[in-house]
Amino acid sequence: MKQVIRLAHGNGGKLTQELIRNVFFPCFNNSFLAPLSDSAVFKLNGTEVAFTTDSYVIKPIFFPGGDIGKLSVSGTVNDLAVMGAKPLFISCSLIIEEGLPLSTLKKIIWSIQETAIKSGVKVITGDTKVVEKGSGDSIFINTAGIGVVSSEIKLGFDRIEVGDRIIISGTIGDHSIAVLSQREELGFGESVSSDCAPLYELVEKLKPYWKDIKFMRDPTRGGIAGILNEIVQGRNFGIELWEREIPLKEETMAICELLGIDPLYLANEGKIIFFVNEKNANEIVEVLRNHPLGEKANVVGEVVAGPPGKVYLETIIGTKRVLDMLVEDQLPRIC
Amino acid sequence: MKQVIRLAHGNGGKLTQELIRNVFFPCFNNSFLAPLSDSAVFKLNGTEVAFTTDSYVIKPIFFPGGDIGKLSVSGTVNDLAVMGAKPLFISCSLIIEEGLPLSTLKKIIWSIQETAIKSGVKVITGDTKVVEKGSGDSIFINTAGIGVVSSEIKLGFDRIEVGDRIIISGTIGDHSIAVLSQREELGFGESVSSDCAPLYELVEKLKPYWKDIKFMRDPTRGGIAGILNEIVQGRNFGIELWEREIPLKEETMAICELLGIDPLYLANEGKIIFFVNEKNANEIVEVLRNHPLGEKANVVGEVVAGPPGKVYLETIIGTKRVLDMLVEDQLPRIC
Repeated sequence: MKQVIRLAHGNGGKLTQELIRNVFFPCFNNSFLAPLSDSAVFKLNGTEVAFTTDSYVIKPIFFPGGDIGKLSVSGTVNDLAVMGAKPLFISCSLIIEEGLPLSTLKKIIWSIQETAIKSGVKVITGDTKVVEKGSGDSIFINTAGIGVVSSEIKLGFDRIEVGDRIIISGTIGDHSIAVLSQREELGFGESVSSDCAPLYELVEKLKPYWKDIKFMRDPTRGGIAGILNEIVQGRNFGIELWEREIPLKEETMAICELLGIDPLYLANEGKIIFFVNEKNANEIVEVLRNHPLGEKANVVGEVVAGPPGKVYLETIIGTKRVLDMLVEDQLPRIC
Repeated sequence: MKQVIRLAHGNGGKLTQELIRNVFFPCFNNSFLAPLSDSAVFKLNGTEVAFTTDSYVIKPIFFPGGDIGKLSVSGTVNDLAVMGAKPLFISCSLIIEEGLPLSTLKKIIWSIQETAIKSGVKVITGDTKVVEKGSGDSIFINTAGIGVVSSEIKLGFDRIEVGDRIIISGTIGDHSIAVLSQREELGFGESVSSDCAPLYELVEKLKPYWKDIKFMRDPTRGGIAGILNEIVQGRNFGIELWEREIPLKEETMAICELLGIDPLYLANEGKIIFFVNEKNANEIVEVLRNHPLGEKANVVGEVVAGPPGKVYLETIIGTKRVLDMLVEDQLPRIC
């Protein structure tokens, strides 16, 4: 059977990983490509520079709590922030389907600029392409971002060790549910808002604890279960997540239960997962909770000796189950 | 009437310029955005860095002389090259329509890598999104590029003055005609190949003359007539182009005549327009001709006192006519 690209190749789950490991990495084959990082890092005359890119194809382009413009800046600056890089500049490239109202374009552009200002970045270069009706879907946006990595922060996937605590900066699943509620005729209205937000501020606020932070990721596509699985794959440790500690809005939980969707696999656009030293975990949570973007931060799990290579969920009722990586899409075009 | 985005907003002509000047610039409003440059330039701890982005939506994705992969690297590294920047790193972000054969994706990816190697750049970060059938068109690619600007080269739109010579590095229109010949059932076959190529080598070869080069652009969308119009707009000089000196392949000319298309407005993907000191113009042409990518280089015009703000063509039969900026699309989705 001829192999073709499926929606699930873009969902951040198993097929995305396969594509990256079996197609992209063997081809581009260079030491800057890092399988678990959201940005590449290189040195330019002594300065450590982080560089990242993302295309945004979210549907619908306006949703409670944001729009494709806000998302396209937040997503990219967050990929820099979790590398410990202060975001400085972004590019903005549009692929517009002909017929998009100019007023809609303007709204999106201004949303990009508003988020850029909030993030401390400048949009300094761009491109516009227009495709025929039916060859696109209103608007797709690509942003690439450049940031400077602080010499005071040393993040490394390889610094993670047994005993480290896992912190999430707030409630999970809200972005996906906000988008879903606009897409389907489910009558949920705007009860849940997307968490979509630029997060470098939050990272900066933790400066006194940078030495205790070992690794950061923003749990977008694939959700926290997907990201933790990426991290644990092939490693000599496991991860235990404590369901009772995971912050979840009541409204989000209600919609998830109704639809049979697992919030652990839902994309977030304004959250960070931290791997930190056990002894400072609670202090770090306190600092996060003092910032509006981290109010609901919590320690949600720990790195355990084994079984290695797996993510386990200790459920509210005390049972344990494996959280595997997602294969099929729960929800396509969420970012 | 409600204003909507039309195909012509993406063709590099008048409507593209209007969008840039009336929508994007007033919104993003910063000193790094340069209306006539293909890249933004900023300083990072003393190093001058060029940063650029382009999305590629060309149709068909394979054409004589190239494919969307080769194009997406060439186009972006050329935008760096014409800023006098040595291309170092690029990002690669894919928007794939579900159903694309995996074998096609692999072909494109390897073409990207082959062109990256030729260009001296590394693909160090990327992203993959998949959209439903009918929401895209096989594959769109965005690349963003980072280069370092040499301190030995001083390019500036404001350095252009009356008497400067205009050089084009080779034949014009080949890219558009190669793509068109694949798109329509015109029976032209593969008589014309795209000129699609990374060009930094050519810029580097001119190193002994860098001080004499005042401005460079790659005449992609809008063609040489479009690009020269952008440059001359609102300035106190004019441009005279000499039709008889403009390199044009016989096959390209024949197809243009048959279809009533003006090659001066056709996109090129492997050419540079140089504005240079009059006295070194011929020497620069000689250097270019000694490189395979510049074999057909020629002096094709000069900067004249007036009438200002206009591009004039001195035709082969000796008459003069204004070359205005294009409004409607001759050929959409050419890059």
